[in-house]
Amino acid sequence: MLDICLLGCGGMMPLPDRFLTSLLVRCNGRCTLIDCGEATQLAIRKSGFGFKNIDTILLTHFHADHTAGIPGLLLTIGNSDRTEPLHIYGPLGCINIIRSICSICGELPFEVMIHELDDKKDNSFKIGELEVKTLGLDHRIACLGYSLKLRRAGKFNPDRARELGVPVPMWKTLQQGLAVEVGGRVVYPGEIMGENRRGLKISYCTDTRPTRRMPDFVRGSDLFICEGMYSEEDKKQMARDKKHMLFSEAASIARAGGVKRLWLTHYSPSLADPVESIGAARDIFPDTTPGENNLQITLRFED
Amino acid sequence: MLDICLLGCGGMMPLPDRFLTSLLVRCNGRCTLIDCGEATQLAIRKSGFGFKNIDTILLTHFHADHTAGIPGLLLTIGNSDRTEPLHIYGPLGCINIIRSICSICGELPFEVMIHELDDKKDNSFKIGELEVKTLGLDHRIACLGYSLKLRRAGKFNPDRARELGVPVPMWKTLQQGLAVEVGGRVVYPGEIMGENRRGLKISYCTDTRPTRRMPDFVRGSDLFICEGMYSEEDKKQMARDKKHMLFSEAASIARAGGVKRLWLTHYSPSLADPVESIGAARDIFPDTTPGENNLQITLRFED
Repeated sequence: MLDICLLGCGGMMPLPDRFLTSLLVRCNGRCTLIDCGEATQLAIRKSGFGFKNIDTILLTHFHADHTAGIPGLLLTIGNSDRTEPLHIYGPLGCINIIRSICSICGELPFEVMIHELDDKKDNSFKIGELEVKTLGLDHRIACLGYSLKLRRAGKFNPDRARELGVPVPMWKTLQQGLAVEVGGRVVYPGEIMGENRRGLKISYCTDTRPTRRMPDFVRGSDLFICEGMYSEEDKKQMARDKKHMLFSEAASIARAGGVKRLWLTHYSPSLADPVESIGAARDIFPDTTPGENNLQITLRFED
Repeated sequence: MLDICLLGCGGMMPLPDRFLTSLLVRCNGRCTLIDCGEATQLAIRKSGFGFKNIDTILLTHFHADHTAGIPGLLLTIGNSDRTEPLHIYGPLGCINIIRSICSICGELPFEVMIHELDDKKDNSFKIGELEVKTLGLDHRIACLGYSLKLRRAGKFNPDRARELGVPVPMWKTLQQGLAVEVGGRVVYPGEIMGENRRGLKISYCTDTRPTRRMPDFVRGSDLFICEGMYSEEDKKQMARDKKHMLFSEAASIARAGGVKRLWLTHYSPSLADPVESIGAARDIFPDTTPGENNLQITLRFED
């Protein structure tokens, strides 16, 4: 199960009724935050997800609307009595940038561990049970898309377990993917568990122009969160110049990637009502939702 | 005339219904901002004062709740088409701190000129017509109180001007405090203007313990904005440890300094309802107002 909260849906600057774009993902009680613009801590407070369990912050890039909220958030997490280390991942240069903007933080009660990711490479790493992959995007500075995958083990076959003489207290170990020893013989999970079942996947791409690799990167996502800076087709040249996307371009990627649902976000401050302009995107990809503050969903395994 | 807006009244962290403490002062259409915590740009947007005319930012100290909003604010001011330089004043170290936290700003369309002020000295400088003075306060790091004074010239005596043969078109120059030449003789403003009349003064002190010099520094203020981190008398030891003040301590300074009115601000996040606890402060200094988001007043010259 994954609890997802799109904290805000704005780009460039926070507005009184529109927080900047960032995402919280909760998996087994631990939270991962993607991006942290100014006032993201206010959006988190409204979401009800809490501060103390934020273990990881993934940064797409270093523009202020994605990073300026980090010092205040770290201080507020510190005030929540967190003492375990917190990890920040971002493009190359992350260590210097985070150290610079956090020069106003004083001493935090937890360690901050910063990991740099080369946007020219396909990176993968784990956050607890979540498998994270990155994709280099096409923005004005180095920028990363992220996908987060929660695997689901195959079905446990109790008849087969009994057949092999595995005592019931050992079943849990096998279900966790570990081997057990029964009467001098090692029993492997593969002997008792079926094939891996369909897990859950979300993907998050902002800020960027559409790229050739994006459909494959987001393929099969239960939820694809994608920037849509502009809704009007006549802003395509502006989108090209500023390295952003139209609603319709995001919808085309969702369709090409065969995702389940698309949430649009990172609206230009000049876009007053994204709901009004959602039609063209839905013509291309019907399950498109215009992002809004505190948009939440819980994704569960199938059947 | 001075238009004043207390943008928020919180300390430590922004809350959904309480912006961080900062002040906007408008004089002849030009604005000075004191402090800029996270989300101050949202508070400015709600105040209606606008971004483009913010010429100066005065920083009391470098804790994040007073500075973390600077990168975002500068970018938003940049988006308002400002091209004139913007000045930032703060304690020693200001140049490095601002450069560090603004490493996520890219190139701004205006110049930022940073001025460092030694908190061990009494500094004075001018912002347009405003005369600014600083006072070193008693906080955990170097911290400055600010007073802003708008002088008012003496009354213009038209009979005396005619007596000295000054033609009417030259009266304005004298009223502006400049000498004129009439028939080969220099006429000085002092010959025609009365004594300076009472001007306007505001003072702003946060974060600090009470100090011996504060009453003199704020003396005669039309408005004294002072921190009151805690309302309960039994938090005095905590206030001492954290270098903050009780409501009652702020009220005592207001009384000793003979100010006209006191606004309390910079409440602890644990203080739910400052209005409820205002009584003790008002017993000491009756014209005490509990600060709130977007608290505005226009101060005018007397008579």
